[in-house]
Amino acid sequence: MIVVMRQGCTDAEIEGVQNAIESKPGITAPIWRGAERSVIGVLGSIYPELQTELEQLPGVVEVLRVSKPYKLAGRDFRPDDTQITVGDVSIGGSEVVVMSGPCSVEGEEMLLATARVARDAGARILRGGAFKPRSSPYSFRGMGVDGLKLLAKAREETGLPVVTEVMTAEDVDVVAEYADILQVGARNMQNFILLDKVGKIKKPVLLKRGFSNTYEELLLSAEYIMSGGNNEVILCERGIRTFEDYTRNTLDLAAIPVLKRLSHLPIVADPSHGTGRWHLVAPMALAAVAAGAHGLIIEVHPNPDKALSDGPQSLTFENFQTLMEGVRSVAQVVGKSVAPEIT
Amino acid sequence: MIVVMRQGCTDAEIEGVQNAIESKPGITAPIWRGAERSVIGVLGSIYPELQTELEQLPGVVEVLRVSKPYKLAGRDFRPDDTQITVGDVSIGGSEVVVMSGPCSVEGEEMLLATARVARDAGARILRGGAFKPRSSPYSFRGMGVDGLKLLAKAREETGLPVVTEVMTAEDVDVVAEYADILQVGARNMQNFILLDKVGKIKKPVLLKRGFSNTYEELLLSAEYIMSGGNNEVILCERGIRTFEDYTRNTLDLAAIPVLKRLSHLPIVADPSHGTGRWHLVAPMALAAVAAGAHGLIIEVHPNPDKALSDGPQSLTFENFQTLMEGVRSVAQVVGKSVAPEIT
Amino acid sequence: MIVVMRQGCTDAEIEGVQNAIESKPGITAPIWRGAERSVIGVLGSIYPELQTELEQLPGVVEVLRVSKPYKLAGRDFRPDDTQITVGDVSIGGSEVVVMSGPCSVEGEEMLLATARVARDAGARILRGGAFKPRSSPYSFRGMGVDGLKLLAKAREETGLPVVTEVMTAEDVDVVAEYADILQVGARNMQNFILLDKVGKIKKPVLLKRGFSNTYEELLLSAEYIMSGGNNEVILCERGIRTFEDYTRNTLDLAAIPVLKRLSHLPIVADPSHGTGRWHLVAPMALAAVAAGAHGLIIEVHPNPDKALSDGPQSLTFENFQTLMEGVRSVAQVVGKSVAPEIT
Amino acid sequence: MIVVMRQGCTDAEIEGVQNAIESKPGITAPIWRGAERSVIGVLGSIYPELQTELEQLPGVVEVLRVSKPYKLAGRDFRPDDTQITVGDVSIGGSEVVVMSGPCSVEGEEMLLATARVARDAGARILRGGAFKPRSSPYSFRGMGVDGLKLLAKAREETGLPVVTEVMTAEDVDVVAEYADILQVGARNMQNFILLDKVGKIKKPVLLKRGFSNTYEELLLSAEYIMSGGNNEVILCERGIRTFEDYTRNTLDLAAIPVLKRLSHLPIVADPSHGTGRWHLVAPMALAAVAAGAHGLIIEVHPNPDKALSDGPQSLTFENFQTLMEGVRSVAQVVGKSVAPEIT
Repeated sequence: MIVVMRQGCTDAEIEGVQNAIESKPGITAPIWRGAERSVIGVLGSIYPELQTELEQLPGVVEVLRVSKPYKLAGRDFRPDDTQITVGDVSIGGSEVVVMSGPCSVEGEEMLLATARVARDAGARILRGGAFKPRSSPYSFRGMGVDGLKLLAKAREETGLPVVTEVMTAEDVDVVAEYADILQVGARNMQNFILLDKVGKIKKPVLLKRGFSNTYEELLLSAEYIMSGGNNEVILCERGIRTFEDYTRNTLDLAAIPVLKRLSHLPIVADPSHGTGRWHLVAPMALAAVAAGAHGLIIEVHPNPDKALSDGPQSLTFENFQTLMEGVRSVAQVVGKSVAPEIT
Repeated sequence: MIVVMRQGCTDAEIEGVQNAIESKPGITAPIWRGAERSVIGVLGSIYPELQTELEQLPGVVEVLRVSKPYKLAGRDFRPDDTQITVGDVSIGGSEVVVMSGPCSVEGEEMLLATARVARDAGARILRGGAFKPRSSPYSFRGMGVDGLKLLAKAREETGLPVVTEVMTAEDVDVVAEYADILQVGARNMQNFILLDKVGKIKKPVLLKRGFSNTYEELLLSAEYIMSGGNNEVILCERGIRTFEDYTRNTLDLAAIPVLKRLSHLPIVADPSHGTGRWHLVAPMALAAVAAGAHGLIIEVHPNPDKALSDGPQSLTFENFQTLMEGVRSVAQVVGKSVAPEIT
Repeated sequence: MIVVMRQGCTDAEIEGVQNAIESKPGITAPIWRGAERSVIGVLGSIYPELQTELEQLPGVVEVLRVSKPYKLAGRDFRPDDTQITVGDVSIGGSEVVVMSGPCSVEGEEMLLATARVARDAGARILRGGAFKPRSSPYSFRGMGVDGLKLLAKAREETGLPVVTEVMTAEDVDVVAEYADILQVGARNMQNFILLDKVGKIKKPVLLKRGFSNTYEELLLSAEYIMSGGNNEVILCERGIRTFEDYTRNTLDLAAIPVLKRLSHLPIVADPSHGTGRWHLVAPMALAAVAAGAHGLIIEVHPNPDKALSDGPQSLTFENFQTLMEGVRSVAQVVGKSVAPEIT
Repeated sequence: MIVVMRQGCTDAEIEGVQNAIESKPGITAPIWRGAERSVIGVLGSIYPELQTELEQLPGVVEVLRVSKPYKLAGRDFRPDDTQITVGDVSIGGSEVVVMSGPCSVEGEEMLLATARVARDAGARILRGGAFKPRSSPYSFRGMGVDGLKLLAKAREETGLPVVTEVMTAEDVDVVAEYADILQVGARNMQNFILLDKVGKIKKPVLLKRGFSNTYEELLLSAEYIMSGGNNEVILCERGIRTFEDYTRNTLDLAAIPVLKRLSHLPIVADPSHGTGRWHLVAPMALAAVAAGAHGLIIEVHPNPDKALSDGPQSLTFENFQTLMEGVRSVAQVVGKSVAPEIT
């Protein structure tokens, strides 16, 4: 950190800051007196609260942070891309991994039908919600553990590993029993108790960006999970909230190249939630792949207009199959592959 | 709801929509054929998923909602202001209730000192964090149950009821054991499991607006709590996230008159988190009172530059005392009162 | 429009609204009395101020707009894609048209060198700023008319048509004398005097989305130009302002498929301004093409670290050549073409 | 500025940066080698483009700005509050100056009636739009010069100085002929040609904050005007654009204390545009005064439901009179005065 002092501050103020810094073990504070103003360096051990403390001292104008606040999640810590293996799928390498399925698990038949179509079209992971976060208490909130059991059954039938959301620390164990990847949803990106808990398990976590959170905050939430011992975090861009209300969210695709630069973790995109409208899913899915995404999450439903949640953003089977052809083509020209269609 | 049909849609499409609506029990769907386009009404029982379903039907351009999605939290449901009583304090009436204390409970001495100063200056509720949500896993995360015990002790000494944050459903019982009001923080405004849980207790809940949530979403989260049986919800505006980064958040004071119009629940403002800078707390606190707030939450610390969290936004004892004089004057001219100073 | 009345409103209020509507020539107002509340239709001629007027009447809760506020810019008005021809280039068809050049025209040599490299790599239009909008009065504000002359000279040498920004109505004539396409910048998207003026000329206009404007507002600004008689409007997505500050703006690529749906006008993307960082330009350019953009605007500079403006977001010649190969590949798989490299 | 170098950068890179800086006259670049990384200072003359240039050099991670980019508009430049005198009114001192009138000038009778009521209730400046910026080309766009003449007539009759908007550089002279204060609207806050032009006149300018502009950008736009020689700039907060759409804008009242700290210029608030709903105008006006505003702009109309623009946010005469009583009371308790009612 660098402490910028007020123009014309006193020597006593400069010394006050220097003393405050050097009172901590393992840290030094060289002073650099400029013509216009003085600045003081902060070198050595990291004290998370120190910036705040220094900003309060007399004579201080600003405290500029030079290092990033996350470590384990950063490229500096681990220069090579992290690849996360689930069954025979590797996320974070040269395959664009498509995760697909219904928004909510609504019953066995619809789930199995969707899973088969998804797999045959080239999806590698089955998604489906058993616990659903809903803004209104009067909306359908998922089948719960029964939904988890259906997902496990669909995995057995199709061979697809399962990703599903966990909404609270108390449910982590039961969800981990059935799922292959645990999803932490956008509204829970800063549910720190939940992050702590999924940091203690041995399964990968798909961490969705909160709809008003920065890249740095997303990486800090990944840091929570990793600092608990679980390094298998998959980042997910799913749209942020802006003033534009034609789309449900604004899918921020620049997050993909930025997060690949700042972090070694894989990053996938969710154009279904990121747009909220089925006719935008295909163009934004292709765009995400072109931007370098390691994977896609796509909602598919046998009958979107009867879906109990997120119908407007779900693809029909046919639309999904068409989408996958496009994804395959774009992946190829950016040097990536997609699992082949099963015919 | 009103379903707007495409110009030139077919009779079959119109009938399709009508049938879809009238297939639900207790609902009728009159058609109104305009010169330019047709619209179809939806009258009777409420089906939360129906809007989504109708939007998918052929010929439909848009489904416009006429009723509000919340009921218990709305003015229509309860025209008179809700007043919530805690000890001898009533929140939601003509007193501007000031809730004050340190961001985090850091120890007995600092807590008691702060509580006494707060009370003597006219605060009516003691605030203090025992469980702290922090963006970084490396920051101070609160004293936990030990902090709760200190808060209870401070209540005993000062007579001030205590408000403190609960971060997860698992902790609701223990927090409710010590606190008089449970706070649900901004990052948990849509932690629906937590909302469900605090909806089952018999203590008031202070519900903070998420930093990218709308008024309607805030009221829907209140609805979660109320639909569980707990009607004692205090709304709190604490700043939203915008492009402006000089302030930590943008305190949206229009939320106060708007929420008083839409809802019968009390609404308080938090200028400490809403600005993130101590020198902005006083002007924004006065502004909140002028705008009609039922209360204020203000961070005070014996020594803000040594605070373990949120130092830059905490007031010194002296600044808090000065602030309270201003609050008292503004409250008076808008027909409200503030507890007198104890000298 | 549809006027929604308050529950329990009086018959006199309903009649008051009906009379207010029917007092306008060519308009009728059928009443539809529901069980819960009444609504009143507004059919016939359009009166732009009527919504506002009705919202003020006693008993009115809300006035819902059913039609879109723009006409000439909308798909309803013109179902087929508009193609705009400049020299031998057609914008809006199956070719992805790349517009490239330096942010600012800084001198003859740098401009010609850049124009030749751009053309040889497959750019079809030369961009370059002669009049530069700058947040600070102390920044370089462009070469003015001298810059326009250099652009004309570069066109002569390379055969590339020129697009350049016009900042004020007074300059429209002089810019139109030298340029082939006039650019209206993001900060001027709602400079209505300028829109009126470029609506009167016979050259195409590239209209950039303001950084906090909606799709609808962008189309209304296009409507300004078109209602003046100039139908040749090219829309441009160049990033919106959000809370994320790692990137200069948030490039909203969903704008591309949305605007293609709502409007018949061509839409191009500007990943240089949309990200503000050169290393993000290539992935976002490919993404824009995958999302269906009709063109790209890319800043190139012989020596980005000496650029007088926007150096951090400009590509070197070499990076631009590499980018064009990628663009060509992605264009091909989405059924588009890009001009071939000249070797 | 301070240049932060990459960890492990080479000596040649450090020297490259130092040389780049010291190649400019009047500037030195001391190097400070830390244990973890090196930083290089930039001391002396200011070169606006230098930050950009340095960010491009090899080995550079970040260039941190220490000084503010504006000078004339800043408190450092002028520690005392600027007071701007118009007729017998002084803006920027201890009087809360209320500027009031209709959104648009619609005719003589309505203007005079409004002006008289405004004056008698304590308004000191008459506002009214003759040139109206409208999102749609089909909306009423003002009476133009005829409107200016009516404003001048109303000034004659009531003694109130006039503030009115100028939309383009070409109109500055004619507007300055009739108006006492020229308003630059939110959409023109970065119309730099217009800013240059009003910087050359001898009348005060009311500069509205753009709806997605930062405090710093607002002050830079003031700097444009001041650097042209016109120091009489009145800043105006009128609401920013956020995701909340219940209100037309989000009135950011923290702008008031922040801008008073950063700048010596007066700052007024516009709760009419800042909320877009008449029932929110009074509470937000009182809040603005409590927050320290030097003035208010309030829309009043003899018959808001017939207004040709902005009816929903205009007050009736009666509501305005009630509002003024509230403003007077709040002003008094924060040590300010408001002109007395004329009875």
